[in-house]
Amino acid sequence: MGKGRLEAFSDGVLAIIITIMVLEMKVPHGDKLSSLKPIFPVFISYILSFINIGIYWNNHHHMLHASQHVDGKVLWANIHLLFWLSLIPFATGWMGENHFSTGPVALYGVILFMASIAYYILAHLLIRLHGKKSTLAAALGNDRKGKISSVIYFCAIGIAFINAWVSLSLIALVAAIWFIPDYRIEKKLVQEHCMESELQKAEP
Amino acid sequence: MGKGRLEAFSDGVLAIIITIMVLEMKVPHGDKLSSLKPIFPVFISYILSFINIGIYWNNHHHMLHASQHVDGKVLWANIHLLFWLSLIPFATGWMGENHFSTGPVALYGVILFMASIAYYILAHLLIRLHGKKSTLAAALGNDRKGKISSVIYFCAIGIAFINAWVSLSLIALVAAIWFIPDYRIEKKLVQEHCMESELQKAEP
Amino acid sequence: MGKGRLEAFSDGVLAIIITIMVLEMKVPHGDKLSSLKPIFPVFISYILSFINIGIYWNNHHHMLHASQHVDGKVLWANIHLLFWLSLIPFATGWMGENHFSTGPVALYGVILFMASIAYYILAHLLIRLHGKKSTLAAALGNDRKGKISSVIYFCAIGIAFINAWVSLSLIALVAAIWFIPDYRIEKKLVQEHCMESELQKAEP
Amino acid sequence: MGKGRLEAFSDGVLAIIITIMVLEMKVPHGDKLSSLKPIFPVFISYILSFINIGIYWNNHHHMLHASQHVDGKVLWANIHLLFWLSLIPFATGWMGENHFSTGPVALYGVILFMASIAYYILAHLLIRLHGKKSTLAAALGNDRKGKISSVIYFCAIGIAFINAWVSLSLIALVAAIWFIPDYRIEKKLVQEHCMESELQKAEP
Repeated sequence: MGKGRLEAFSDGVLAIIITIMVLEMKVPHGDKLSSLKPIFPVFISYILSFINIGIYWNNHHHMLHASQHVDGKVLWANIHLLFWLSLIPFATGWMGENHFSTGPVALYGVILFMASIAYYILAHLLIRLHGKKSTLAAALGNDRKGKISSVIYFCAIGIAFINAWVSLSLIALVAAIWFIPDYRIEKKLVQEHCMESELQKAEP
Repeated sequence: MGKGRLEAFSDGVLAIIITIMVLEMKVPHGDKLSSLKPIFPVFISYILSFINIGIYWNNHHHMLHASQHVDGKVLWANIHLLFWLSLIPFATGWMGENHFSTGPVALYGVILFMASIAYYILAHLLIRLHGKKSTLAAALGNDRKGKISSVIYFCAIGIAFINAWVSLSLIALVAAIWFIPDYRIEKKLVQEHCMESELQKAEP
Repeated sequence: MGKGRLEAFSDGVLAIIITIMVLEMKVPHGDKLSSLKPIFPVFISYILSFINIGIYWNNHHHMLHASQHVDGKVLWANIHLLFWLSLIPFATGWMGENHFSTGPVALYGVILFMASIAYYILAHLLIRLHGKKSTLAAALGNDRKGKISSVIYFCAIGIAFINAWVSLSLIALVAAIWFIPDYRIEKKLVQEHCMESELQKAEP
Repeated sequence: MGKGRLEAFSDGVLAIIITIMVLEMKVPHGDKLSSLKPIFPVFISYILSFINIGIYWNNHHHMLHASQHVDGKVLWANIHLLFWLSLIPFATGWMGENHFSTGPVALYGVILFMASIAYYILAHLLIRLHGKKSTLAAALGNDRKGKISSVIYFCAIGIAFINAWVSLSLIALVAAIWFIPDYRIEKKLVQEHCMESELQKAEP
């Protein structure tokens, strides 16, 4: 089964998620630049979520690029991932309106934690489908970055009840370590490609 | 006529439907986790509809995958299906806000019943276009699952006026029986592919 | 220049227009089926606009299908068409909330009239690009249906100030005559294809 | 790495941005045509932003059309561009509601200035990837139009605090100079294509 429509549907959903978040920034009533001040936290919260969705789109793009086909289970694992990501605009709005207080930050952590688990499930179903010796499996490796992210998110949820700002910093830290796109896959694909060329040269 | 744009347009509409439902979950005013409590039914209602749209996307994907071409009637049958699905966010919001009471559950049942009829029409127009001996026709078979779903939805509408929770359980039951993607088509396609390979081997 | 992205962008915009209209149907406060009564006119207005957008998507699909390439002017003519169509959700909401009274119906007529003019411009730029002897030009013919639509919309605007219901009936009449997809293009493409096959058979 | 999904994601985001702006035009309460008067500035502001997004989509289309591949940095530069563009609906709504007063116009200028810088970064990363001798690099040339736009936007921000209408005219002026699609790239591609044909003819 082709991966084209899975990519198209995911692109659509991620494009909408990333864009409707801006609807949470309500137009202020005054017309002075100072009337923007109350929505400043909402704006910061918007930037953080924009980057997070950008990271997911980026990594999703790389992972599917290295995949050849999908099956019914992969389709559902993908919808499961999109479900958790679709809750981000809600948590973003709540967090911004309450200036990053405990409750909203904890919820934001829960959603990102669940999304990271969903991404893990999707990655492993794809690997199982392509085999342990596939480019995809080699490229993803032991997925250290993914596992660390899940652990940090899990800690961030608990820490939110002690200090919301420390929790938020942890969440931002994960964004920072993922900001660099998944060069592992890019590198592996290039290697694969080179090796094939070498073999073809060697053959005659 | 190619099926590409029909798939693209449907993906777009389904992606938007599945995502704008989250706008029905209004950001609560307090910042405690307990302020989320009133929107819990809306959340449950959101999950149910997310799964339902996911099922439609999944089956639509499988059915179009087994199709080779479309015509003007298929385009309209598809728009008709999207019409009923586009009403789901409205019914979802109403159902969530009223804690799954009779009226909203009945309306939700009506919309799902009409969507199942629209899907049936779309499937049959596609089969007529591809012929009774096509892979598509063989794969869809007598569409027992589809017919059962329509009947259960129809019952659920009536039962909503007696007990809304029983009605809701029936609706959830249909989601459960469809949750497994349409393996009939996947299986048929694999068989077809194998038979062709066998024939090609046998030829020389 | 390829037509792929023009189709993708148009599909995206039309998918969003057709779906966000449902946001104009605000969830009612009561939970009785009778609480749906006040939003009934909004629903009727939603159906009418859903069909209109469906017609535009359908005809756009057929026209682009018969086109081979696009240029800068076509891109802008397409954006111009999307502009007028993007105003439909606004007019739909206004018309529904005011039970199809004079002002909103007149505005709805103006928007549909402008959209029909924009479609005409787009069609003629495409014909100029492909030549008067192209399949596209032959298929569109003298575009009688398009011209009649524009004239009826123009009349509907004036008549709205005398009787809004007559005006609305005229608008619905245009929807009815377009409901049948543009078979001219389909037929022409089939003919073309047959002639080519004939010629190829005749050649050796 | 293919450019297909980058185009698809950008098309999705731009389609949503251009369409959700219409949600800022709230349906008026009265049903007279005169009740549209208060939203007239919002409408003007909507037209301006529609054209601006249209210009970005158009130029993005042309630039990516001349590109062969993308890398991780290009993906992020593209997301960065989409971020600034995603703020346009917010500024559009604020500007329209306050009849183009100083604060909103200045903010609108800031967003357009940042978007023009983001576009510049994206263009230069693409050129670096394709080489200084690529069709893309030759086609974009020294990007005089882009640089002038950034300078005018920068001036418009300052001037907004003296006279908002002069500032707005400058912003509209930039739209006017970009309204004509990027013929440089179209021309270059045609030349390239011709030269190749010439060379192929000359070879035997």
